Amino acid sequence: MHIDRHTLLTQIRTLAAIGVNDHGERTRLALDDADKAARDRLVQWMRALDMRVCIDQVGNIFGIYPAAATDTHNALMIGSHIDTVRNAGALDGCYGVLSGLAVVRAWHTAGEIPPRPIIVAAFTNEEGVRFHPDMMGSLAMAGGIDVNTVLDAEDADGIRLGDELARIGYAGDTPVGALIPREYLELHIEQGPVLEAEGLDIGVVDSLQGISWQEITLTGAANHAGTTPIELRHDAGYGAAVCIARLREHICANGFTRATVGCLQLFPNAINVIPVKAVFTVDMRDPDDARLQDAEARLNAELDAVAAREGLQATRKVLARFAPVQFDAALAQHIEDAAVASGLRWKRMTSGAGHDAQMIARVARAAMIFVPSRGGISHSPLEHTDDAQLCHGADILLATVQRCLGKG
Amino acid sequence: MHIDRHTLLTQIRTLAAIGVNDHGERTRLALDDADKAARDRLVQWMRALDMRVCIDQVGNIFGIYPAAATDTHNALMIGSHIDTVRNAGALDGCYGVLSGLAVVRAWHTAGEIPPRPIIVAAFTNEEGVRFHPDMMGSLAMAGGIDVNTVLDAEDADGIRLGDELARIGYAGDTPVGALIPREYLELHIEQGPVLEAEGLDIGVVDSLQGISWQEITLTGAANHAGTTPIELRHDAGYGAAVCIARLREHICANGFTRATVGCLQLFPNAINVIPVKAVFTVDMRDPDDARLQDAEARLNAELDAVAAREGLQATRKVLARFAPVQFDAALAQHIEDAAVASGLRWKRMTSGAGHDAQMIARVARAAMIFVPSRGGISHSPLEHTDDAQLCHGADILLATVQRCLGKG
Repeated sequence: MHIDRHTLLTQIRTLAAIGVNDHGERTRLALDDADKAARDRLVQWMRALDMRVCIDQVGNIFGIYPAAATDTHNALMIGSHIDTVRNAGALDGCYGVLSGLAVVRAWHTAGEIPPRPIIVAAFTNEEGVRFHPDMMGSLAMAGGIDVNTVLDAEDADGIRLGDELARIGYAGDTPVGALIPREYLELHIEQGPVLEAEGLDIGVVDSLQGISWQEITLTGAANHAGTTPIELRHDAGYGAAVCIARLREHICANGFTRATVGCLQLFPNAINVIPVKAVFTVDMRDPDDARLQDAEARLNAELDAVAAREGLQATRKVLARFAPVQFDAALAQHIEDAAVASGLRWKRMTSGAGHDAQMIARVARAAMIFVPSRGGISHSPLEHTDDAQLCHGADILLATVQRCLGKG
Repeated sequence: MHIDRHTLLTQIRTLAAIGVNDHGERTRLALDDADKAARDRLVQWMRALDMRVCIDQVGNIFGIYPAAATDTHNALMIGSHIDTVRNAGALDGCYGVLSGLAVVRAWHTAGEIPPRPIIVAAFTNEEGVRFHPDMMGSLAMAGGIDVNTVLDAEDADGIRLGDELARIGYAGDTPVGALIPREYLELHIEQGPVLEAEGLDIGVVDSLQGISWQEITLTGAANHAGTTPIELRHDAGYGAAVCIARLREHICANGFTRATVGCLQLFPNAINVIPVKAVFTVDMRDPDDARLQDAEARLNAELDAVAAREGLQATRKVLARFAPVQFDAALAQHIEDAAVASGLRWKRMTSGAGHDAQMIARVARAAMIFVPSRGGISHSPLEHTDDAQLCHGADILLATVQRCLGKG
C-alpha cells in the first residue's frame, strides 16, 4: 500500500488553480465563489474514492471511507482546510486534505477496507480572513463556539455566514460534533523556516504554541505638527511606536515568545497632524502559557507607562486567546516511529501557527506532521515545498495511519 | 479710522457656515462646491466695498481698493486663504482674508482713499488637502510653480484642477504674478499654544520654520507571525516603529526641531503576517536650516542603520522642502511698533506652520501677525480664538497698514 504521488500532486495543482484572478493571485476566502468551486471539486474527488460525503451545519465537509461505515466514533480522521488567505500559496491546508484523500486512495486502490473508518475532513473558515474567529469550523466541532454564533457571523460587508453557506450549497444537516473521531492527524507545511534550516524532512509535532491576539487603541490629541511643542503633545502614533519597539526589545526578548504587530492604523492619518489615535494588533505566541501570560502582563505595563508618560488613553481588546496545546503522546510516538522507520530526517517540534488540530485536540487524540516550507514563507504566493518533500510527508501520514489502525 | 468689529465677526461666522454637512462638519476643499460658494460670497463682499475683483489664471482672488487703482506694484497686500481641511475650524485662513476686508472697510467707511492701493487676496488651495502641493496659489504667484503644472494637478479622483476652476467659474484671465505688491501682511491664528500659554495677545511673526516632508518606505519580508523566529524576521513595521521612536528620542531631541509621523501604513496589514512594507511620512520643522538639514541627515542614518540591522530596504521620497523664511525686518518692526502703541501683550515669534506669506516673501516684503489659538488646536472643529482676541489682531493689522502707508 502506497501513496499515488502523481494523483496527489495533480490534485494539489488542480485545487491551486481555483480562485486565481487575472493578476495570478490565488484567493479563496471562506464560502466565496472560489471556495464553493474548490469544495465542489473536493466532494467530487471524495465520491470518486467511494467515500460517503457529509456536510455539517457549519459547512465542514467530511468524506467517510468506507461509505457504509456507521461506527464513526472509532474513525481515524485526517483533516485540514481548503480556504485561503488573500493572495495565498497553494499548499496551506489543501496539502493536508488532499494527503488524506491520498491515504484513502491507497486503501481504495489496494481494494482493502481499513480496520476502522477513515474520515477526511475539510473545515470551514480556518484562515479567519473573511469571518472571525479563525479555525471556526474545527472550533465549532470541538464545542468551542455555538452553531448559531457561527451562522450569525458577518463578514466586513455585513454578509451572514449562514446565508453564504446556503447560497453556495454547503448548509449541511449533519449535526456539528456528530463525527468526533477516535484520533485526528493533520499533515501541514511548517509555515516556518526551522525544518529547512536544519536540513530535515519531517516535523513530529507534539505541541502547539499558545496564541494571544489583542487589539490596542491609544488615544491622544490631534494637533498641528508644526506648531505644537514636543512637550505639549499627546501623540498616539509615537506611543504606538514605542510599544512596538519595546515589544521586540524588552517585553518579548526572552528568546521564546514571538510577538508581531501586523496591523496598525493612525487617525486622522494626515502628514501634518499629530495622530489622535493609533490602533494596532499584537500577536504573541509561546509554547509555555506562563511565559505567554507574563508577556501579556508586561505589554499591559508598557502600555500603561507610555500612556501615563505621553498623556494617552490605552484600551485593549482580546481578539483571540488560546492556551498552548500538548498533542497526544501516543499519536506523536506513532508519527515518530513512522519517521524513524522511513529513514527520513525528522525532529520533534512545536507548531508556531494555529491549526484545526488544536481545536480537535479538545475532543480527540490529535497530533500533526510537518514538512519543510522553503524560506519559511507562507500566506504568500512564494509558499513552496518541493514535490519530493510533499510526497515524503504523505508517506509518513500513510505509515502513521497504518500504525494507528494496526496495519504498520 | 477703526475696525468694524461687528461686521468682521459676522462675516467670519457667515463664511464658517458654508460647507457644513449634516454632521456639523465644516469642509471646503479647494475648488469644491463649498469653496465656490465661499468664493462667491467673498467676491460679493469685496464688490460691496467698491473693490475691483481680479481672478488670476490659478483662481487666486484679488480685491483691489480703490477699484480704479492702476499702480498695483505699489500696493499693500493683505492675504490668506478660504479653503479648509476636512472637518475644519472657522478661523484658519478666513480670519486673515476677512480682516483684510475689515481694513479696507475702515478706509471705505471713513470715505478716504489710501495713499497706495490695498489688495486683499485669497489664495487657491493653501491647505493642499485636495491638490498637491499646499500653498499652491501663492507659490504660483511667487513663480515657484508653473501655471500649467498647477492647472494639470489632479485630485485623488483624477479630477484636474484647471477643469474644476472652469467648472466653478474661477478660471480667471489675470496673468499669475501680475499683482505683485510692494509689501504683504498676513494675519492668522497661531495654530499653536505659545501665545495662550504665555498670556499674550499678539505674535509679531518675523520668521517661519523650515519644513521638510518625506515619505519613507521600508520593505522587508512577509512571513508568518507564529512560525518565524525573531532572528529570521525582516519586519518592516518594527523597523518603522524604531525609526519613529528614535525620531523623538534622539534625532530631534535638540529642543528645536519638531518631528511628526502623521501617516503610517503597514502591508499586508494582517494580524498574523509580519509586515512586508511600512510606508510613513516624516514632517520635520525648524527655524534654522542647518539644524533641519542635520535632522534630515540623522534620520537618513537611522533608516540606514535599522535597514542594515533588520534586513530591510529603505527608500525616501521628498514630498516638500522649504527653507526657513526670514520675514522683512522693517515690516515686522511696523507690526511691533503697532503692538507697542496698542498696549497689547506681544512677543516676537517664528511661525511653526506654513503660510501663503512664506511664498509671497520670495517676491515682496512680507510679515505676519498671530493671535492666540485656544489650546493650540487647529485643523479641528475645536479651533477657537476669543472674539476680543480676533478684534485685537485686526486692530494691529489696521494700525500696521496705516504705518506702512504713512498714516500711523
